[in-house]
Amino acid sequence: MVRRTDTRARVLQTAAELFQQQGYNATGLNQVLADSSAPKGSLYFHFPGGKEQLAAESVALSGGELGQRMAAVVAAASGPAEAITALGELFAQSLEASGFRNGCPVATVALEAAGDSEPIRAVCDGVYSAWQSGLARALRDWGVPDAQADPLAAVTVSSLQGALLLARVQRNVSVIHEVTRQVGALADQSRRLP
Amino acid sequence: MVRRTDTRARVLQTAAELFQQQGYNATGLNQVLADSSAPKGSLYFHFPGGKEQLAAESVALSGGELGQRMAAVVAAASGPAEAITALGELFAQSLEASGFRNGCPVATVALEAAGDSEPIRAVCDGVYSAWQSGLARALRDWGVPDAQADPLAAVTVSSLQGALLLARVQRNVSVIHEVTRQVGALADQSRRLP
Repeated sequence: MVRRTDTRARVLQTAAELFQQQGYNATGLNQVLADSSAPKGSLYFHFPGGKEQLAAESVALSGGELGQRMAAVVAAASGPAEAITALGELFAQSLEASGFRNGCPVATVALEAAGDSEPIRAVCDGVYSAWQSGLARALRDWGVPDAQADPLAAVTVSSLQGALLLARVQRNVSVIHEVTRQVGALADQSRRLP
Repeated sequence: MVRRTDTRARVLQTAAELFQQQGYNATGLNQVLADSSAPKGSLYFHFPGGKEQLAAESVALSGGELGQRMAAVVAAASGPAEAITALGELFAQSLEASGFRNGCPVATVALEAAGDSEPIRAVCDGVYSAWQSGLARALRDWGVPDAQADPLAAVTVSSLQGALLLARVQRNVSVIHEVTRQVGALADQSRRLP
């Protein structure tokens, strides 16, 4: 097991922020080192797989943290529609608060690098799967039939991802709320008419 | 008005393919020149705004072409659900045929560059808006109430974009079909229960 140090954690946190804001190709290792005030050489010591390893771990870290915030939002909701619109609010707030810079911490890296890097693809897939299965579990607990819970969770994650993309190019989060309102209604309905 | 030449068209077509497959930051102007067998110097002659202009025009070209194929698919359908599932098939086929390399010709460039470049942001916004308004018009023609046509079209475009992203990281197009089946059902229902 790799030894964890403050330097390692600091480099990873910095990298995660840069990958989220700039994507994979625009983020250079020198910028990661400079922004995290890490000594030269520490990067390959802690991340022998270089940029690819750093990106994979960054996506796992940011995607996992966001997944925990998503789970908390879902746990606080009283039903499917409320949960899904609250997820939209979570993403919309983060996007607006960052001046439309912080979109999904997975999407940009996924689109740029998942086609060429199997480790990055696998991590992105794992993050989205975890989000989806967490939501599907909550939907089942609210009475959505088994057969519909996974597809509904897939629609929710997909439409959130797409709406986040549209909101970034529109520089307006309205589309996120519009989309989650409808997907939420669809989910509530599945519960009532099994 | 800029004079159109074969060289210009060839450079633009090559750039559009590279931006779609690799994104904005991984695509260099030297590669565009080499792949299009264009003489050095022709790039800045035809695209004085450099890479930014080339990317903006590439997204407009690819997004416009795809929008025409989407409109044809929608026009051939008999109703909302059929149209939306057929749009999913169009995207899924293109993704599979390219070995999961050709996703949306807009999304990667949008996520990488729309935050920093107003011309690129505006073109991405315009392409998505055109797709959405074309679909909303068709939905209204099929009897979806005015107030629901635009939101439903926004859900469709969003969920298609997100499902395309998930399909790329899963290397499996099933999620596209799963998502469009449900969004299609939602749209058909809006027609029946205005």
